[in-house]
Amino acid sequence: MSFDLGEGIAVLERTPATLRVLLSGLPESWITTDEGPDTFSPFENVGHLIHGERTDWIPRARIILAQKGDRRFQPYDRFAQRRESQGRSLVDLLDEFDHLRSENVATLRSWDLADGELALEGEHPELGPVTLRQLLATWVAHDLGHLAQTARVMAKRYREDVGPWRAYLPILNG
Amino acid sequence: MSFDLGEGIAVLERTPATLRVLLSGLPESWITTDEGPDTFSPFENVGHLIHGERTDWIPRARIILAQKGDRRFQPYDRFAQRRESQGRSLVDLLDEFDHLRSENVATLRSWDLADGELALEGEHPELGPVTLRQLLATWVAHDLGHLAQTARVMAKRYREDVGPWRAYLPILNG
Repeated sequence: MSFDLGEGIAVLERTPATLRVLLSGLPESWITTDEGPDTFSPFENVGHLIHGERTDWIPRARIILAQKGDRRFQPYDRFAQRRESQGRSLVDLLDEFDHLRSENVATLRSWDLADGELALEGEHPELGPVTLRQLLATWVAHDLGHLAQTARVMAKRYREDVGPWRAYLPILNG
Repeated sequence: MSFDLGEGIAVLERTPATLRVLLSGLPESWITTDEGPDTFSPFENVGHLIHGERTDWIPRARIILAQKGDRRFQPYDRFAQRRESQGRSLVDLLDEFDHLRSENVATLRSWDLADGELALEGEHPELGPVTLRQLLATWVAHDLGHLAQTARVMAKRYREDVGPWRAYLPILNG
């Protein structure tokens, strides 16, 4: 096991700025490209991360820390951003993600969690019992997964354009 | 086909700052993690991108544009950074990548390439004839591939730590 709270926070607090530097000011074609039906464009990735800040990570951590009778999480809507991001600009979404993430990381830091608290459990509606440590590790891995997905969906725009180099670029064939 | 020179440059000029925001100041454990023998850590990804700036993209573009008798590229050493990055700090590598990329993008812009030039061919030592357009599209996709790889190798540190969430995180199983 590798999870360490300070190391995890170091990643969480970098994600909004990383996405801002990568995406803001790019031509629209890069922002709206996707991998087909029910896949996320870079724009949708940012909206999805915002939805997580509002409804997933910190709200679920609060349920675990409260240790009341009902520790079952609300199911997570992977496509909520289709409603919530409608008509908004990318810069607006990047600003909101930055703002929410800063607040949530400040909340996480303020809890000053000890090992005993990280071992407390909640109930995932599909996966069953999960610990706070697993939830926080998932928050970090989920960020990195959506950063990788954003880069991959962009790369795939050039799947044909690279010609024979496609054989050397595994990202285009995933 | 989607390749457009201006759109491609928009990505190329963002990569150094994206990697800097993602990686600089992170604990060493995030920088040196890899996926096993002959795989790249985040540190090695930056070294590999530097080697490309020095020996691959612009040097190969020059060979194509010169259209002399021998248009065959030098083979590319995917592991050159193991020698070249030895003993250096991540910040030092990020600075060098930023500097080289700025110069190379300035060179590319200065050529003001027209469609006829983008269609010119060189000879890849293994792939055979390739066009300048394919080379430039590959440069962009290669950047995005290494950004995705960097995020993936970091995420995999938490492969076990996420517990049952692993089933929902395809990045951990790739």
